[in-house]
Amino acid sequence: MAKLRNLSIACLAMGSMVVSALAEGPGEFVTLGTQGGPLANATRSQPANALVLEDGVYLVDVGDGAAGRLAAAGIPLQRLKGVFISHLHFDHTGGLAAILGLRFQLNAPGVLTVYGPPGTEEMVAGLVASMQPGAEAGYGVPGEQKPDPAAMVSVVEIRDGAKIEVEDFTVTAAENSHYSFPKGTELDQRFDSLSFRFDLPERSIVYTGDTGPSENVEKLAKGADLLVSEMIDLEQTIGAVKRANPNLPEKALTDMARHLSEHHLTPYDVGQLAHRAHVKNLVVTHLATGAAGAIDTAPYAAEIGTVFKGRVTIAEDLDRF
Amino acid sequence: MAKLRNLSIACLAMGSMVVSALAEGPGEFVTLGTQGGPLANATRSQPANALVLEDGVYLVDVGDGAAGRLAAAGIPLQRLKGVFISHLHFDHTGGLAAILGLRFQLNAPGVLTVYGPPGTEEMVAGLVASMQPGAEAGYGVPGEQKPDPAAMVSVVEIRDGAKIEVEDFTVTAAENSHYSFPKGTELDQRFDSLSFRFDLPERSIVYTGDTGPSENVEKLAKGADLLVSEMIDLEQTIGAVKRANPNLPEKALTDMARHLSEHHLTPYDVGQLAHRAHVKNLVVTHLATGAAGAIDTAPYAAEIGTVFKGRVTIAEDLDRF
Repeated sequence: MAKLRNLSIACLAMGSMVVSALAEGPGEFVTLGTQGGPLANATRSQPANALVLEDGVYLVDVGDGAAGRLAAAGIPLQRLKGVFISHLHFDHTGGLAAILGLRFQLNAPGVLTVYGPPGTEEMVAGLVASMQPGAEAGYGVPGEQKPDPAAMVSVVEIRDGAKIEVEDFTVTAAENSHYSFPKGTELDQRFDSLSFRFDLPERSIVYTGDTGPSENVEKLAKGADLLVSEMIDLEQTIGAVKRANPNLPEKALTDMARHLSEHHLTPYDVGQLAHRAHVKNLVVTHLATGAAGAIDTAPYAAEIGTVFKGRVTIAEDLDRF
Repeated sequence: MAKLRNLSIACLAMGSMVVSALAEGPGEFVTLGTQGGPLANATRSQPANALVLEDGVYLVDVGDGAAGRLAAAGIPLQRLKGVFISHLHFDHTGGLAAILGLRFQLNAPGVLTVYGPPGTEEMVAGLVASMQPGAEAGYGVPGEQKPDPAAMVSVVEIRDGAKIEVEDFTVTAAENSHYSFPKGTELDQRFDSLSFRFDLPERSIVYTGDTGPSENVEKLAKGADLLVSEMIDLEQTIGAVKRANPNLPEKALTDMARHLSEHHLTPYDVGQLAHRAHVKNLVVTHLATGAAGAIDTAPYAAEIGTVFKGRVTIAEDLDRF
């Protein structure tokens, strides 16, 4: 038995040996994955970000590969204290299973809190259930002391207008326009797609998640030091669809363009949001471009710059802001 | 309604636009992630591989980030037909949630079959349950036609000695020594850690999964064209534990070294396995080295070469064999 306890201790200790490469101070926002899903891209990971504070790290969306991206950013998984989920699209949540599983294997300290919209509790319950057989087998040695996967995670569901205190910062959630269920319908009652404002001791950061143009998000972003916004290249995306579906009727393409433009932000829309909210700096991520590989992002910054006069950065994976 | 059906068609078509970068013929084994988990590494992804055949692609283990690694290898997710899981450690399974979720969002064709040891069905059931709220919200538009997550995946549980026909190839499973529950105990009855042999029309490939020295695996690998083996650097791993736990008693370290050496293969063990099984080529992956970043792998190949006289390659992520 003693040697098995020591195995867990050693795993934990090995985890904490991963040297943090963070050069800057706390309150950093790291764009771990900058591709808009669901199409995987060869050069950009799926949506995931890290809010790096003095006392811990929080993921902000957790797409496929988030655990690996944390390692690539030099951030030990053991520093992770919580996860914020903007909405339930799987390109934003697909990496959570691995986070929970690797924390279990490393016997990571503390309880991971997952903050997200309605549905988050059911999602996490499913992930915990999926871990049961692996948790029971453990490292495959008899008499092993194994943590309980359910005890390693907790969920806080939040909706539009929620304002919660987490350690020494405040998080405010605002429903955005990424979902467009008709008002009052059952689906509208059940689901929210959220944007988040993080008011840290030193600075304020607003993360749009996925959204179309939205007054609620503009209000949330008012005067923020940093706005991290999603973006779609509508023309490229529709062009890609057109090339792949040469027989798709023109009306279907027009309908799709309208749908995408209501649920996402074009570069012009991003500029308008940043301009109207009077933010200081703008970072663009979640590039929905229909591209399988690398792209030239300069035109996006230029188009945004025609509307917003502050600093604009089109994020790459692992950039720090 | 028509526009929503078209949205799914378009997503599907966009997926298939991702150009495959495969230069070689079918029956290729691609090492998508070559790090032994659970510690994430900055330069190597968690365990995942792709068996690329003419008519489809199969994942062989599916650690964190497998979907992104497929994209990085130029393999469209829509080509994926099945997943083989060697055992239930989360570094080998953590990427499956994202695979299922992204396939849902892309409305990918066909049913994904997950082949794995006992426990796989319960694991996949949990993942499907975790998808329910996201699946019900869908793209967030009213009247959308959404696939049923449960209908997009099926499970085939296999144990030691199983021989199954999949398309035009045969898969044989052998229980290895990665788990060491005492024979006849409940945990031994319930769980297997498996190695796989893929007898393709053109070649035979054996994948050890995680294992210690094992006659069963030697037998499985007999005369294979390609052996893909796991490996641990025991000295480095124990050294890393020692540095992180300066007060750990010597006996605990000795116990741990014995445990790790029984559940994993040292370079010498890998050479012995390849030599005794008379395989033609050896590829080493799942490097368990205790390292957070890049490492020099030349000494491993040299040590293996003292025992095995065939071709030895220490795999990098995205290598093709």
